[in-house]
Amino acid sequence: MSTYRAGIIGATGYTGSELVRILHHHPNVSIEVITSESRPGEPFSAVHPFFEGIVDIPLKTAAQALEMPLDVVFLALPHGVSMKFAQAFLKKNIPVIDLSGDFRLAGPQVYSQWYGTEHTFPEGFGISVYGMPELNRDRLPQARLIACPGCYPTGSILALAPLLKAGLLQAGSIIIDAKSGTTGAGVKPSAVTHFSGVNENFRAYGLKKHRHTAEIEEQLHGVCAGDSGCGPIQFTPHLLPVDRGILSTIYALPNGTSDTNDAFQEEIRSALYQAYSNEPFVHLVTSPPSLKDVRGTNTVRIYADFDARTGRVLLVSAIDNLVKGSSGQAVQCMNLMLGLPETLALETIALNP
Amino acid sequence: MSTYRAGIIGATGYTGSELVRILHHHPNVSIEVITSESRPGEPFSAVHPFFEGIVDIPLKTAAQALEMPLDVVFLALPHGVSMKFAQAFLKKNIPVIDLSGDFRLAGPQVYSQWYGTEHTFPEGFGISVYGMPELNRDRLPQARLIACPGCYPTGSILALAPLLKAGLLQAGSIIIDAKSGTTGAGVKPSAVTHFSGVNENFRAYGLKKHRHTAEIEEQLHGVCAGDSGCGPIQFTPHLLPVDRGILSTIYALPNGTSDTNDAFQEEIRSALYQAYSNEPFVHLVTSPPSLKDVRGTNTVRIYADFDARTGRVLLVSAIDNLVKGSSGQAVQCMNLMLGLPETLALETIALNP
Amino acid sequence: MSTYRAGIIGATGYTGSELVRILHHHPNVSIEVITSESRPGEPFSAVHPFFEGIVDIPLKTAAQALEMPLDVVFLALPHGVSMKFAQAFLKKNIPVIDLSGDFRLAGPQVYSQWYGTEHTFPEGFGISVYGMPELNRDRLPQARLIACPGCYPTGSILALAPLLKAGLLQAGSIIIDAKSGTTGAGVKPSAVTHFSGVNENFRAYGLKKHRHTAEIEEQLHGVCAGDSGCGPIQFTPHLLPVDRGILSTIYALPNGTSDTNDAFQEEIRSALYQAYSNEPFVHLVTSPPSLKDVRGTNTVRIYADFDARTGRVLLVSAIDNLVKGSSGQAVQCMNLMLGLPETLALETIALNP
Amino acid sequence: MSTYRAGIIGATGYTGSELVRILHHHPNVSIEVITSESRPGEPFSAVHPFFEGIVDIPLKTAAQALEMPLDVVFLALPHGVSMKFAQAFLKKNIPVIDLSGDFRLAGPQVYSQWYGTEHTFPEGFGISVYGMPELNRDRLPQARLIACPGCYPTGSILALAPLLKAGLLQAGSIIIDAKSGTTGAGVKPSAVTHFSGVNENFRAYGLKKHRHTAEIEEQLHGVCAGDSGCGPIQFTPHLLPVDRGILSTIYALPNGTSDTNDAFQEEIRSALYQAYSNEPFVHLVTSPPSLKDVRGTNTVRIYADFDARTGRVLLVSAIDNLVKGSSGQAVQCMNLMLGLPETLALETIALNP
Repeated sequence: MSTYRAGIIGATGYTGSELVRILHHHPNVSIEVITSESRPGEPFSAVHPFFEGIVDIPLKTAAQALEMPLDVVFLALPHGVSMKFAQAFLKKNIPVIDLSGDFRLAGPQVYSQWYGTEHTFPEGFGISVYGMPELNRDRLPQARLIACPGCYPTGSILALAPLLKAGLLQAGSIIIDAKSGTTGAGVKPSAVTHFSGVNENFRAYGLKKHRHTAEIEEQLHGVCAGDSGCGPIQFTPHLLPVDRGILSTIYALPNGTSDTNDAFQEEIRSALYQAYSNEPFVHLVTSPPSLKDVRGTNTVRIYADFDARTGRVLLVSAIDNLVKGSSGQAVQCMNLMLGLPETLALETIALNP
Repeated sequence: MSTYRAGIIGATGYTGSELVRILHHHPNVSIEVITSESRPGEPFSAVHPFFEGIVDIPLKTAAQALEMPLDVVFLALPHGVSMKFAQAFLKKNIPVIDLSGDFRLAGPQVYSQWYGTEHTFPEGFGISVYGMPELNRDRLPQARLIACPGCYPTGSILALAPLLKAGLLQAGSIIIDAKSGTTGAGVKPSAVTHFSGVNENFRAYGLKKHRHTAEIEEQLHGVCAGDSGCGPIQFTPHLLPVDRGILSTIYALPNGTSDTNDAFQEEIRSALYQAYSNEPFVHLVTSPPSLKDVRGTNTVRIYADFDARTGRVLLVSAIDNLVKGSSGQAVQCMNLMLGLPETLALETIALNP
Repeated sequence: MSTYRAGIIGATGYTGSELVRILHHHPNVSIEVITSESRPGEPFSAVHPFFEGIVDIPLKTAAQALEMPLDVVFLALPHGVSMKFAQAFLKKNIPVIDLSGDFRLAGPQVYSQWYGTEHTFPEGFGISVYGMPELNRDRLPQARLIACPGCYPTGSILALAPLLKAGLLQAGSIIIDAKSGTTGAGVKPSAVTHFSGVNENFRAYGLKKHRHTAEIEEQLHGVCAGDSGCGPIQFTPHLLPVDRGILSTIYALPNGTSDTNDAFQEEIRSALYQAYSNEPFVHLVTSPPSLKDVRGTNTVRIYADFDARTGRVLLVSAIDNLVKGSSGQAVQCMNLMLGLPETLALETIALNP
Repeated sequence: MSTYRAGIIGATGYTGSELVRILHHHPNVSIEVITSESRPGEPFSAVHPFFEGIVDIPLKTAAQALEMPLDVVFLALPHGVSMKFAQAFLKKNIPVIDLSGDFRLAGPQVYSQWYGTEHTFPEGFGISVYGMPELNRDRLPQARLIACPGCYPTGSILALAPLLKAGLLQAGSIIIDAKSGTTGAGVKPSAVTHFSGVNENFRAYGLKKHRHTAEIEEQLHGVCAGDSGCGPIQFTPHLLPVDRGILSTIYALPNGTSDTNDAFQEEIRSALYQAYSNEPFVHLVTSPPSLKDVRGTNTVRIYADFDARTGRVLLVSAIDNLVKGSSGQAVQCMNLMLGLPETLALETIALNP
């Protein structure tokens, strides 16, 4: 197999450093350029000292990267910034894998509504593919612009999609109570991520209005059986005093009735099994997963149950928000786009403990 | 005011040491005896070294305590053990404040069902008072046996009771997604509480079958307006990598319809305000609380909201599981039982950070 | 006893909020004013939400505080800022307790050298008293300007001073390997205090050049027996992934020789015992202390040992950096200055766990 | 290259699971057997659920493993147990890599003295090689019994050995103040590793008497230039509230005098550079390392400095105690023993954050 030349646009954040960590060992990819507008010329390892002696190549600007011959670029940029570079690289005919929120939603209107700003490259929505291989594997090989899913949506959608496809859940009944490590809030210091504010603490935030609500609803509407859709989703994120990981506890009511509770529980598990038995990065587990089970991996672990006493479906999913929830899934998409084996560079075992 | 002689039966656990921490500064209580069956004769501070130089009195056995003149005893014992000593102290005519689960439920049958063991003092249920002052303040002064609430039920019931009393929530719609610090699992080392299993980790446990489900349902059924009761409660606990605190995120559907969403939101907040405006240990807050807001205090913080988009009531409550969820609430009950000002020894401000 | 009117200048940091937490329960002090230049008019609890419902008084500016009748002010300000307000309040004849580093060192020259800036109130050095009651109790009642010790110096000096006074340690042999929780770095978000940079991490910093080196050396030189002084101190701070606490592990060589090792070990312990047997906030302990033993308290715990195999004295001290290392010690000084019982408002037991 | 058949004796601990994590991706090793005396027949992933779906092979007993054709065995057993199996596998002519402390010291006498028990296979000392490739690379290819170093000794010896070889440090002056994550205390629940005892806490332990003292002294004596040896080492371990990592802060006095301080600092760095410039797993760094810089890697990071003011050499080293401090270094030794490239399966980048 050949070697593909990759660019990573935006080096200073966690998604950028995770891309480098993963791609550095990829047998068919060479990292040609890493960019930073704030620290061009410095070695990459000056920004992330744990790469010292491993990845010391000097940072360039995005403008410089645009002049280089590349086979693929990853945009590890804030939303609002990403759209500009997506447009520029596509113009140069370089396929783009965008890790921001700029092309995840259905179009510019809904984007403006949830992100509070105008979209400057609305044409992007027409060609972008939502980068979740388990839902869109067929569309990724020919994609030119991949919109990598948000971290919360990844964990939630993977648990719910097969059940909604199978028509097993009642519209409007879905509640996602999600808990995320603080790396989801980014590398930039703030009151929210100050050590003594997070440590030994726990809180809910973004009640009723977190952006990922829209993304989850859109994707789930898209897979629902029948015409009714999945109804509004209740989504409540919380901030955990850990670095990595999202655990989503999901509640829903069954759609229609089975002969028995056991039969229904079996239907749920069967729908998940059928959807995922061949998926390399989905593990259906028989007891509720924990964050450290998946830390550092590209795997989602999903547990499904039915509470006959209350008549409710219970789902628990766990991912590493920086890997399956971001940079790992981006590399998985790249593998598919480039026609490489899907699991290359991603078969790590959890670092536990 | 006079000084009351208190005994603390069971010194080795967290609830025992918290009782000593709180009562040591109580102006009207003297700690006459602290017991441990495993380490009699040793100073209390040998078990909990942070008391060295502060509380060094030698531990006695419970049998010795039974021979002492006491005005009140606290049982900080495991369930199943507590019932025996409750009976023994009551026989000596000493009022008992029990921190275990032995007298929280309605009677011996339901006890056996959820705790998996026979009750040896079923008569206790007839005289016990559920020790939540905000619900039962009138019954506490004459109580001889107080059953202190479980930690999870404390946070959940205080948030829900006023809304159910006011008939604002639909039966069967209540979901409690609760997250607790690890001290709730006790002082005894186990795989569950091993540092590297909890640290940087997070998981759900006890799905569908945690004992506190029964306790929450019983208490809420008791306060519900109308005949229908509150229906089965969905209760899912999770284990947080923090020492102290329980945050409960609660979802429910409204009962009936208001003229407008704003009107309904107002009804919710008004029900809570009317119930709690004079309560010294309930703080209704205007943004979601965090665990450190209440760490080391006897306060519950409750946030209430209505999501018009999904049509759901959202509640978030935060307590310190070892104080309001256990030893602090026990002292609050003692103050009421003894006719003392309710807040004595309990007016601490959160240790934050 | 009368009530004294206190002002707290600088509300947004940890030392400010700790002062309020401690003084709120002080039987002889009323907090008359709390200031913030950035958020005047807002309630104090808007800055520190865990005070909501407890301390909600509106913040004023320092200029407003200067016009108020006060009996004492605490300056909880950054160094460099504090000196200006110290001068202004002293001019108004209000005694000042300064928690910054502005008056801890011997004079303006050494200040400039270690703090890198000119001192604008050099006269302050002539009247300031170093606010460590265990060393300077006699000088505090008549003090008009108290310079509260740094957090690292508090833990180190209290362990070493009695041994140096007794001439037991060899000049130049002292090594202090100190480990601090992150609140020592303040409330302001930065890369250093970003959650994911501190959590699950540990590092040394400020090698060879931390400011507290000078403060420790000056104070210890002052107490040394004989003419030789204590020599240069090796001081290495480290950043712990905890909120509160400083543990100092101290190594030194003995001065001269005892008849036997046991005799020398006895000399060490005896020197500490004689110095501290009547001190309310010094606990000499018989096994190495841990941070949680003192969390939330104004106590220092000191462990002393002699390693006969290597011929070295070993000391371990533990404090809460925000209480004995800062705001608690400041209140202790205030009690002494005002002629109140030294322990008022400070007799808390550690919050553990 | 061929495939070597490996056995892992002792599956339940952290070193066992780390060996599986590392060897699972080794291109030239197949894990033929994993043993557990307590849970034979169960899948390996039943003991470590994060391997579910990845390594599910059934556990066997050590007796069964002894009957299998193997090319190498790793003993991930407690000291005292390991020696028996070392003898048994060597008798079967299978080379042994022992991760316990059973063959690290010079001989059975010193072993008994520090480990408090008789050695039942004293002949092992005659053939064992101390498994630190940076010191003993030449002796590993022909080794039949490799004694993998302790975690603390790994971090300390690697920092000190080149300076002692070069005669730069004064005998008797070395102080090692080491701080370790809790996985060093093993997987077995105990009061020491109980979450609420470690979390938000920090303490020194094993003062004057930790076993690793002997191991460090023996190895350093062995490399010292001249006849005087390195003298007694002061070693103080501390317990950090993190899972992984050891940071060692080391103090020593220079031996003799250089022309200038700068010249001496240069000598120190030059000695380290000469020793390690070709070492794949030693990174000499220019600012003090942190634990997360090496988490999950087989790398040691070493920082060296000279404090001209105090006349002391300062060293800081960081390792992951479960990788370079244990299972990773064991695999490094195996690679050398089998004649494979030394870095196979070990070239991971730190998981950070």
